[in-house]
Amino acid sequence: MISHFKITGYGMYLPPDIETAEDLAPKLNRSVNWIIKRAGVQERRISKIDVDEMGAIAIKEAIGKKNKPDLIINASGVPKQVIPDTSIFIQKHLGFSAIPSFSIHATCLSFLVALNIASNFIKSKQYKRIVIVSSDRGTCGRNFNEPESAALLGDAAAAVYIEPRKSESGLLSYSMETYPEGSRFTEVRGGGTYLHPQNPITKDSDNLFSMDGPKIFRMALDKVYTKIDLDLKKNNIKKDDIKLLIPHQASGRGVNAYIEIGGFKENQVMNIVNNTGNCVSASIPLALVMAKNKNLFNEKDLLYFIGTGAGLSISSALIRI
Amino acid sequence: MISHFKITGYGMYLPPDIETAEDLAPKLNRSVNWIIKRAGVQERRISKIDVDEMGAIAIKEAIGKKNKPDLIINASGVPKQVIPDTSIFIQKHLGFSAIPSFSIHATCLSFLVALNIASNFIKSKQYKRIVIVSSDRGTCGRNFNEPESAALLGDAAAAVYIEPRKSESGLLSYSMETYPEGSRFTEVRGGGTYLHPQNPITKDSDNLFSMDGPKIFRMALDKVYTKIDLDLKKNNIKKDDIKLLIPHQASGRGVNAYIEIGGFKENQVMNIVNNTGNCVSASIPLALVMAKNKNLFNEKDLLYFIGTGAGLSISSALIRI
Repeated sequence: MISHFKITGYGMYLPPDIETAEDLAPKLNRSVNWIIKRAGVQERRISKIDVDEMGAIAIKEAIGKKNKPDLIINASGVPKQVIPDTSIFIQKHLGFSAIPSFSIHATCLSFLVALNIASNFIKSKQYKRIVIVSSDRGTCGRNFNEPESAALLGDAAAAVYIEPRKSESGLLSYSMETYPEGSRFTEVRGGGTYLHPQNPITKDSDNLFSMDGPKIFRMALDKVYTKIDLDLKKNNIKKDDIKLLIPHQASGRGVNAYIEIGGFKENQVMNIVNNTGNCVSASIPLALVMAKNKNLFNEKDLLYFIGTGAGLSISSALIRI
Repeated sequence: MISHFKITGYGMYLPPDIETAEDLAPKLNRSVNWIIKRAGVQERRISKIDVDEMGAIAIKEAIGKKNKPDLIINASGVPKQVIPDTSIFIQKHLGFSAIPSFSIHATCLSFLVALNIASNFIKSKQYKRIVIVSSDRGTCGRNFNEPESAALLGDAAAAVYIEPRKSESGLLSYSMETYPEGSRFTEVRGGGTYLHPQNPITKDSDNLFSMDGPKIFRMALDKVYTKIDLDLKKNNIKKDDIKLLIPHQASGRGVNAYIEIGGFKENQVMNIVNNTGNCVSASIPLALVMAKNKNLFNEKDLLYFIGTGAGLSISSALIRI
């Protein structure tokens, strides 16, 4: 047991504007069937507001009538701007001031990394009301000349509010490994010091999202299932003990693999990718919040989070609700 | 006491190329005296290698002959690229694989935020050999049309290696507050979703560093000294008990204020800004590593870190060596 806590608030922002595979097909010069077969995404949301405002809406819902948090962790993939970090702008939208805030970046795994950090803060009693928010607007960085990745992305934000609890609830186990052999498999090469926007050699495509799904899938497959086996053993549980597996919603194929290859039952695996796309860092917490809203889990249930992120990193977390 | 640990490794990378105020003056269309008076920076380093390679060199020195770390936290201001996070590329340069790594972003305070997170990991025994690295190459984002900020920046990387110790050593106290009222005082507006490189309204200057030093100074002054008083009281110590105050090297004026307004003695305040400039996230750990290399502190000495970062955020940490 890493830390005893309870998620006492859940919030999300799903932009109202829907882009269907039918809408997207002509932009990608691909058929609707191609999009649905390759990406597994029938529709995704397109946000007209920026990541900070999206995140603030999700946080407001997560806070509800509770006290202001004493820490805000932004755990997102792509920032609003290079400096300051996005947590500042999120706090500004919330109308808060003087609350410590910073950002964690581990791309699609940012939420799990932040959840583990928050667990440690709760355990040491340094912070007692922690908000974690993931907000990504991947659709504004799509490269329509790379239909495989452009068909995947969607926009969303999701947030949780975490408090200490003297109970069975909390983080039972967590792990992460990073394999830089996969550093070029998922990229936005621009925006930093490497291919600075002002660098004459920076191409337009360097500022857009690029992903080699099949290479990631091949590299991740063994590692992910080894991790699942290890986590089950370490926690002395069986697959059936897990109420809900909440994977990163990388792609239709990526999510289905937990059923087809991983051996989990269909109703055990949270699958929202068909209607939301890959929302980068927001996919995991969004799936969690949607599962909560659909009453797919109850007090004391075990939830198992797992996913891969650019790096290539692999992370998992087992929590008791 | 937050956590018992010891910094068992110190490393830094100061690029070999020096740019003096004399070299910089014609680029800024300002005199040498103006630069030295306004920025307080006589010379800074210009890196020809990118942030990941800079960081890896600092880490290698910090690791020395010790074991590989079990966690790498990149705590830097500006990334190499938007995705993946820079920790991946740093790990790649080190030739490591499978070590968990991620990035923290709190601009100039990233190192202190990471130090606190690492302290919590050490306390909970989740990780036992943690490397924190800060690497920034601010000179490639200078706006020569904004001489006030362009005169400040320099390039550097610094790293520490932290291990648990059953002793008096470790983190005695830590605090942070973020005031989004100052969100526009220090910025690189581009590079993210707000003013995306492909957005036609994004101007060249949006991709460069911008800072309103005097506004930050006015906003921070009271808050910084209130924090110092509170930290002294909270830890039941006097100014004289602090062997070395290691501030963020924001500017010559900013560092001197700890002596002139804060009432610390000149030999208590680590001042490297004149020869390195403001190295963004790397300033604080670089000053620490340089102090170590100059034998400015010994076992059991108290070191007090404090600074402001874009946000505006203010953070402090008291450690016993």
